Amino acid sequence: MAETEEFRHQDQDELILHLKEVQQLLARQKIVEDLVHRQDMPRHDLVETLVHKQHLTQLQAKLDSLHPADIAYILEALPRDERILVWDLVKAERDGEILLEVSDAVRESLIESMAPAELVAAAEQLDADELADLAPDLPTEVIDDVFRSLDTEEREQLRAAMSYTEGSVGALMDFDLVSVREDVSLEVVLRYLRRFDDLPDHTDQLFVVDRDEHLHGVLPLDVLLVNDPDVQVSALMQTDALTLLATDAADDAAQAFERYDLVSAAVIDSAGKLVGRLTVNAVLDHIREEAEAEQLAQAGLKEEEDVFASIWDSVKNRWQWLAINLVTAFIASRVIGAFEGSIEKLVALAALMPIVAGIGGNSGNQTITMIVRAIALGQVGENSERWLYRKEAGVALFNGLIWGGLLGLLAWWLYKDIRLGAVMTAAMTLNLLVAAAVGVAIPMTLRKLGRDPAMGSSVMITAVTDSGGFFIFLGLATLFLL
Amino acid sequence: MAETEEFRHQDQDELILHLKEVQQLLARQKIVEDLVHRQDMPRHDLVETLVHKQHLTQLQAKLDSLHPADIAYILEALPRDERILVWDLVKAERDGEILLEVSDAVRESLIESMAPAELVAAAEQLDADELADLAPDLPTEVIDDVFRSLDTEEREQLRAAMSYTEGSVGALMDFDLVSVREDVSLEVVLRYLRRFDDLPDHTDQLFVVDRDEHLHGVLPLDVLLVNDPDVQVSALMQTDALTLLATDAADDAAQAFERYDLVSAAVIDSAGKLVGRLTVNAVLDHIREEAEAEQLAQAGLKEEEDVFASIWDSVKNRWQWLAINLVTAFIASRVIGAFEGSIEKLVALAALMPIVAGIGGNSGNQTITMIVRAIALGQVGENSERWLYRKEAGVALFNGLIWGGLLGLLAWWLYKDIRLGAVMTAAMTLNLLVAAAVGVAIPMTLRKLGRDPAMGSSVMITAVTDSGGFFIFLGLATLFLL
Repeated sequence: MAETEEFRHQDQDELILHLKEVQQLLARQKIVEDLVHRQDMPRHDLVETLVHKQHLTQLQAKLDSLHPADIAYILEALPRDERILVWDLVKAERDGEILLEVSDAVRESLIESMAPAELVAAAEQLDADELADLAPDLPTEVIDDVFRSLDTEEREQLRAAMSYTEGSVGALMDFDLVSVREDVSLEVVLRYLRRFDDLPDHTDQLFVVDRDEHLHGVLPLDVLLVNDPDVQVSALMQTDALTLLATDAADDAAQAFERYDLVSAAVIDSAGKLVGRLTVNAVLDHIREEAEAEQLAQAGLKEEEDVFASIWDSVKNRWQWLAINLVTAFIASRVIGAFEGSIEKLVALAALMPIVAGIGGNSGNQTITMIVRAIALGQVGENSERWLYRKEAGVALFNGLIWGGLLGLLAWWLYKDIRLGAVMTAAMTLNLLVAAAVGVAIPMTLRKLGRDPAMGSSVMITAVTDSGGFFIFLGLATLFLL
Repeated sequence: MAETEEFRHQDQDELILHLKEVQQLLARQKIVEDLVHRQDMPRHDLVETLVHKQHLTQLQAKLDSLHPADIAYILEALPRDERILVWDLVKAERDGEILLEVSDAVRESLIESMAPAELVAAAEQLDADELADLAPDLPTEVIDDVFRSLDTEEREQLRAAMSYTEGSVGALMDFDLVSVREDVSLEVVLRYLRRFDDLPDHTDQLFVVDRDEHLHGVLPLDVLLVNDPDVQVSALMQTDALTLLATDAADDAAQAFERYDLVSAAVIDSAGKLVGRLTVNAVLDHIREEAEAEQLAQAGLKEEEDVFASIWDSVKNRWQWLAINLVTAFIASRVIGAFEGSIEKLVALAALMPIVAGIGGNSGNQTITMIVRAIALGQVGENSERWLYRKEAGVALFNGLIWGGLLGLLAWWLYKDIRLGAVMTAAMTLNLLVAAAVGVAIPMTLRKLGRDPAMGSSVMITAVTDSGGFFIFLGLATLFLL
């Protein structure tokens, strides 16, 4: 039992405890401040400063004991004012690391609170690839200052890292390479490594390059460890290891990491020169961010929203999707408006029409989600398109007859009109068929146009099934019932 | 230039080329078969066998050259019949690995096509932790057979791996540990490692244990490599490395891997005994699966659906959510039904009411997505609940007055009735407030009840904003307009 106590068993619960502790210190400090402020005593400044300082010192000690990622977590969980207070207490030399860890929205709020000189100091502690990540959020004069402080190699690295577009391997890679020559023995490599203080994180392989930095192969650490030290690197290096181009899509690289269970991969330029490496931690962050961005986009949130953002920031983040939704809802409303005469004659139509539209939207969203995902995984080729239409039409027909039939019976029973029931069933079935067709067509078409198949597909399908559902149901009713 | 050609630069494009090649071979074979079948020649068997064999041999050679993960990808992208044909061509000794790589739905279809003896042979090639992953999909008699073929240690490992619930660290961990004693020098460790043929994948650290397998610390490979071989393990081992309990939640472990950029972590039992290790590739798969499951669940797909599933399998996968949606749509329809008298008098209400309901649903979904995410990241404590209600109410009030006001003007212009416009604005604002309140309340309440805050939250909010929107709009109209 005793041994386990020594280890850092840092899970979510522990993190929440850290957060609570910080919150308590903040709350205690606030009580003191409020007390002092309420009294108009002349010695107020002195008292405040003393008590204030005691809690802040405790808080600072607490923060110093935490991992940068944990401080990032705490900063994200605090409302704006308290966040800035805590941020000011963090040691300046840790600022850079923490800025890298927090979410974009929170990073923005922290950078806003910092003076240019502080930002320059924070940025100067980072590697070129980390700086490149931070750069878009920094004021230009800060970037310029930092740039001037770098040596030639770092400047070149920073320039390279910033030149790659977001979503490319180049934007995710780092420059922490350990490279060796092929004409030496493992013994030499082992001696060379002993000259390091430590190896870069995620070093699972050494890169074998020539004088011109051209990649000839890789030497995994386990190959280095299990083989006789007298063997030459060239005899053991692997020449079939996966390499990436800096211009490759990060998504594809992520899939390769998952598929082949990689820890790191060499990144080369088009001339075969080793320019950096991609590690699994960068891939992991990328996958998580992509998944989150997709989820948020589906709900119409433009980007990651800081839960503690101001009302105005939230409104700005959400308005676009609401506006699009408003337009599609208005069009659907005009479709109904065209049938007002029919509704006046048979008011039951008003009560039944949202069911037809709603089920269509739901079913279309199921189809589209499945197909977008299959496209993303590369499972749907052009030759399976017809197959998919037929399958989805089959599912729609089945559901239309079963669920539409059930609702037809309910409508018949409610309004004692068998023809109304029949129109209900027919409209449901037709709208489900429309949903199936459009659910396949939208992502397949977006893909053919070279666009992201997931982009806005949910809004589009709902727009079609709403307006379409109202039109089909009210149209059929006008034709057959009135 | 020349050097890069040697490397396996295996990205998505190349994978699609492999798939196309397989598809072409399959298509060619099909043409031959069709031709042969159409002729009623007596020598038909012979001809078929010969030509058939030629394409199949090519296909087999192609498959043998591919990584198991790539074969899994190709199997997932093929319709059922072709999938089984390709599967039969895969070398039996690779079956196990490939079954591990394919998605659950595809795995099911492959296992169905295999005889028990084949399954036993495939399963016997796997490690205990891999077997445990596959076991739920295998027939009991196969499991029993495999179990009998294992040695005592493996049996114990399999029993342990299968005893952990899904979503725990135990279910994700493996048993590929390299452990060392603390009272030896690095030189001894290096010599010990040279006795291995290779080290387990993702070995970035060795585990330092005593005779009873109690974990005392870890020795990262880079520490081993950069230090003097004469130093003792005990002097260099890290005792503050992150360790996990086999019963910890996999989600928490995944967050720890992301936060601290880990490659592997020791898994111990409650007595501090080393029972396994968790590696970043298992974490990566877990994160990807969770993100996908969430996305599918949001669209009402019960589980991962094989795009090439039969109509009947798709219907089964999707019906539950459709049924729930049908019930909520029916309730909303009954709310409208209660106001049929009002609609009869003022038919414009029928055209305008879906706008109120739709915008409410959209806005509520934005709120709920953001809060579910913040809860998942542990950023929302109980003390921020009131703050969140106030903020979301503020956003709703703002949007209600702006967008509701705009729609009120439109309604006024369309129907030349300023009072109708005012009711529209008021109803929009009220429904957005309802959406905001429920959007915060649902996930916070689910959390307090210890449930998953994301569970069905989208259906619930839409149900409330639909019925609520119709009720508020038609109710206000009945009160003030009629």
